[in-house]
Amino acid sequence: MQYPQPISKLIEGFMRLPGIGPKTAARLAFYVLDMREDDVLDFAKALVNAKRQLTYCSVCHHITDIDPCRICEDNGRDQTVLCVVQESKDVIAMEKMKEYTGLYHVLHGCISPVDGIGPEDIYIPDLLKRLQDDTIQEVIIATNPNIEGEATAMYISRLIKPTGLKVTRIAHGLPVGGDLEYADEVTLSKAIEGRREI
Amino acid sequence: MQYPQPISKLIEGFMRLPGIGPKTAARLAFYVLDMREDDVLDFAKALVNAKRQLTYCSVCHHITDIDPCRICEDNGRDQTVLCVVQESKDVIAMEKMKEYTGLYHVLHGCISPVDGIGPEDIYIPDLLKRLQDDTIQEVIIATNPNIEGEATAMYISRLIKPTGLKVTRIAHGLPVGGDLEYADEVTLSKAIEGRREI
Repeated sequence: MQYPQPISKLIEGFMRLPGIGPKTAARLAFYVLDMREDDVLDFAKALVNAKRQLTYCSVCHHITDIDPCRICEDNGRDQTVLCVVQESKDVIAMEKMKEYTGLYHVLHGCISPVDGIGPEDIYIPDLLKRLQDDTIQEVIIATNPNIEGEATAMYISRLIKPTGLKVTRIAHGLPVGGDLEYADEVTLSKAIEGRREI
Repeated sequence: MQYPQPISKLIEGFMRLPGIGPKTAARLAFYVLDMREDDVLDFAKALVNAKRQLTYCSVCHHITDIDPCRICEDNGRDQTVLCVVQESKDVIAMEKMKEYTGLYHVLHGCISPVDGIGPEDIYIPDLLKRLQDDTIQEVIIATNPNIEGEATAMYISRLIKPTGLKVTRIAHGLPVGGDLEYADEVTLSKAIEGRREI
C-alpha cells in the first residue's frame, strides 16, 4: 500500500518547494490533515492570491500589489539616490534596516556567463533609461558580494561613470558581531583594504 | 515598508507549518511567486482536497479516502495478527517494509499523564472491542521506544494478557548500519538484554 491519493498529491506539492525532501513533505502533509479546515482554506487562498495579485513594479521591478509600487510612489523618499539590488528580497532586507530612504532598482539576477545570463537578460538597459532624467545623483550598487555580484557591479559602474553620476558600492568587511578568528581570508583582506581612520 | 499584503499572508500561512520559521517562510513564499500559475493552483487544490477527502478508517483509525480503509478491506492479509501503532505515519513506515501482512490499529497518540492523555483519550477501548471476536491471535505492540510509548505498551499488554492472547513488543537494539561507538547507553543495554544465540 502507498499513501491514499489525496495525500500523495499533497506530498508532491510540498516536494516542489525548495529544500523540502520526501520526509519533510510527508511530515508537513500529515500536519495539514490535523489543521482546522478554515486554516487550510486560508492557506490555499493565500497561495493563489499571492500568485495572482502580485506583479512587478513597472518602474523599479520590485514585487508589488499596486503599480507603481509604494516605494516608487512615495514622494517623501529621497528621489536623488538609487540603490541597485539583485532580488526583491534584497529590497525587503534594506527596508528592514529603516535607514535608507532612497529609491531602488531590482535587476532580477546578475550577469553570469556560465549560466548564459548577459546584461540584456536582467534589467540593466532599464536602469540606464531611468538614469537619463537628471533627478538621480547617486547610484549605490548593492549586488551580492560574490563573483557574479562583483562582476555585475563592475559592469554597471563602467556604464554609468562616463555620464558623470556618482557610483558607489556597499562596503565589504567583517559582519558586526562576527569573530575575526572565523573570518575567511577574502573577507579579512577586504576589511583591511577598506579600513578607515577613527 | 513591509511585504505587500498578499505575500505577508502567504508567509503567515507557511509559518503555521511545523519547523518553518519566518526566514524559511519568506524564502518559500518568494519561490511560489516564481512558480507556474498552474502548479500553484494544483498545490492549493491538493491542500484543500487532502483536508476534505481524507478521513480516518472506522475500523483501524488509519488515514484513508475510503471507509473501511484498503488494508482492513484486503482479505489477502493475515487476519490473525494485529499491529498497534501510535500514528498513521507508523502504518506507512511498516507498509514500506513490505514484510508485515497483518492488520493495524492506530491509537492516535500514547498515554501521557504529563499532557493529561489517559487510555480513554486514545483508541485503547476501541482496540479491546476489536479483540473480542476471536479471529485475532497475536497483538504486536509497535509504539515508539520512549517513556510514553513504553508505558502505553505495558498498559495495553496488561489489559490483553488475561484474555490469553499472545502479546508481543517489537525488538529494541542497535539500528542496522549504526555504530556501536555512537549508541547511547540505554539502547546498548537493550541490545545486550535482547541478545539471541546465533
